[in-house]
Amino acid sequence: MEEISWQDEDVRKGFAAIAQASPFVYGLTNYIAANLSANVLLAVGAGPAIGAASDWTRTFPAGAGGVWINTAGLMSSIEETFTEVARTARAAGTPWVLDPVAVGAGAAEYDAFVKSLLEFRPAIIRGNASELIALGGGAALGKGVETTASSAEAVDAIAAIARATGAVVAVSGPVDYITDGTTTVAVPGGDARLTQVTGAGCSLGALCAAAAAAGNDPFSAARIAHAAYAAAAERAGARTTGTGSFAVALVDELSLLTA
Amino acid sequence: MEEISWQDEDVRKGFAAIAQASPFVYGLTNYIAANLSANVLLAVGAGPAIGAASDWTRTFPAGAGGVWINTAGLMSSIEETFTEVARTARAAGTPWVLDPVAVGAGAAEYDAFVKSLLEFRPAIIRGNASELIALGGGAALGKGVETTASSAEAVDAIAAIARATGAVVAVSGPVDYITDGTTTVAVPGGDARLTQVTGAGCSLGALCAAAAAAGNDPFSAARIAHAAYAAAAERAGARTTGTGSFAVALVDELSLLTA
Amino acid sequence: MEEISWQDEDVRKGFAAIAQASPFVYGLTNYIAANLSANVLLAVGAGPAIGAASDWTRTFPAGAGGVWINTAGLMSSIEETFTEVARTARAAGTPWVLDPVAVGAGAAEYDAFVKSLLEFRPAIIRGNASELIALGGGAALGKGVETTASSAEAVDAIAAIARATGAVVAVSGPVDYITDGTTTVAVPGGDARLTQVTGAGCSLGALCAAAAAAGNDPFSAARIAHAAYAAAAERAGARTTGTGSFAVALVDELSLLTA
Repeated sequence: MEEISWQDEDVRKGFAAIAQASPFVYGLTNYIAANLSANVLLAVGAGPAIGAASDWTRTFPAGAGGVWINTAGLMSSIEETFTEVARTARAAGTPWVLDPVAVGAGAAEYDAFVKSLLEFRPAIIRGNASELIALGGGAALGKGVETTASSAEAVDAIAAIARATGAVVAVSGPVDYITDGTTTVAVPGGDARLTQVTGAGCSLGALCAAAAAAGNDPFSAARIAHAAYAAAAERAGARTTGTGSFAVALVDELSLLTA
Repeated sequence: MEEISWQDEDVRKGFAAIAQASPFVYGLTNYIAANLSANVLLAVGAGPAIGAASDWTRTFPAGAGGVWINTAGLMSSIEETFTEVARTARAAGTPWVLDPVAVGAGAAEYDAFVKSLLEFRPAIIRGNASELIALGGGAALGKGVETTASSAEAVDAIAAIARATGAVVAVSGPVDYITDGTTTVAVPGGDARLTQVTGAGCSLGALCAAAAAAGNDPFSAARIAHAAYAAAAERAGARTTGTGSFAVALVDELSLLTA
Repeated sequence: MEEISWQDEDVRKGFAAIAQASPFVYGLTNYIAANLSANVLLAVGAGPAIGAASDWTRTFPAGAGGVWINTAGLMSSIEETFTEVARTARAAGTPWVLDPVAVGAGAAEYDAFVKSLLEFRPAIIRGNASELIALGGGAALGKGVETTASSAEAVDAIAAIARATGAVVAVSGPVDYITDGTTTVAVPGGDARLTQVTGAGCSLGALCAAAAAAGNDPFSAARIAHAAYAAAAERAGARTTGTGSFAVALVDELSLLTA
């Protein structure tokens, strides 16, 4: 399997396109991750707006260059809001990212709703191993929002999801894997403390949307976002010990990647 | 009155049990404190999920090892949601923590709702002095979410609440006090800047729930959480000046306590 | 045009009044900015409460010394909630700050609602150039929550809004401008990274409310808040590189301004 990283010229070039295009990226996400997600996008030069305020849900998905939907956002908006954003993005041809947080953790109604959004054809789906194994119809293994499976165990599941949905699918873990259903690439590196920063995965979904909004095709956008994130996490990890400083340094390093 | 601290062997042992058990802990809280609360739990090795997304409220309180309810979360969920989570936790035997933010600050309907949750028998109640004096039926003294009374002034009130409700009750302040209605212990130390970090108290409630989820009885869980928090705050305070760095260092030190 | 800064005696004196009065300041804001906004207020010695929990919306605007309303908060509360808080603040004589986030960015219903709040006479209105040009009836230029115009381009628009509404109006940018419709002052300085920290503008609105709550008249309160913010941002910028550290340092410097 091919390994990709920040050293790759096309990753760097596609990442630099974000700051050059400075795209407007719109997201529905949960209030735990919203602050970090917005700061990650601002750090790389994108212009985020988040939230279902009034008619933003009917207008911003069409005006934005990319959209991300984190289904844990159901904690502050109703299901119809998510459906409307996904439908509007799909109708406008805006690429959108699905982040099925905590799917498979034991909440059957929630899980069913998450799966219903696949109808609107996300360009990219990202999650942890438990979530993606569950999304693919496998045994539900999640413990709340945490995974109990390793990313390597999800490689077959993500390829199957990609073939069934037409989306690029990416699983986060000690090694990240990204597939279009035919080709799968590995993104080694990163830092284990990413799992100890709330919203770190959610923010990676937002970054995928920003990369797509800058004109990268979905498979390239997912590769660019994951490789940049892994590089920033490694650099952040090299100069911090605790998890609080690591989270701050992660944003720093994203903002300095192209410096 | 006995003083407890991070130096106590049983505190360290009970705290280490959190990372060993890595329990799933579920919370309803407000969106101001949600990010810090999740990061505090991740720092100590617990697996948090937060929020009233779809049927999480009916399923997660039963699947989790501990639950915390911060009533300021009413800013994004209706009363029935809180009642459902408390009732489900109670029925499942999941210990839950009540954090009655801003009770007694002048909002009578809010106060009445907070008190109605006592029916579902929280294992632990924590708050600041104004809140707990008001919860116990005393004069309402709060100024928004801030206290105007000292923790020492609340010692009698928390013992009375403990006897009336069967909960362990803890008040935060320059010295924290924890009681089961019969025995009261003091937790000195900490750092005054804890009152300048939004959600620091809320996150302590989440930490109490994590300690209980790891198998510690409620009185032990409250002691462990408060003594660990005080130690982390002291260490954070010793190496920072401003309140922003202090908040980051607090999470760092919690993640490094057992290192 | 007169330039003001942290060097001015009256700015320092008015800012010190916040910590001396320690006013209760109540806000409705969005969940992306809520954490930073609360931490900014706590850093300067104010006591914030945020959110539409139960009857807080009917009681806290009257009990508080100042109120701020960030209309992006519609992502978690209904329109009537905002109207109620504005009406209650107006009726109680509590000065309130309007932050019309993302007005003019293409969401017509949202824009109309934001403008409807002007009926309740905000004491201060603050925003970026695109927002204030749109609020004044000019061409909608916003890209989500980001501006596409410079603050200097909004100088005429803010003076017109001030004359039409009776509010003090402030626009943020490379140079901030503040006007009461007759006199306009400039606040140079700050740091470009303020635009890369989510909620930094929203938090400045909260700081305006705190300054007003401490007894400063609206024009003074806006000048004090903007000059203090610019000074803190400059100091934060001088000792950080990435945007994550800059955000932490901004709160630090606010907490240390009067030290």
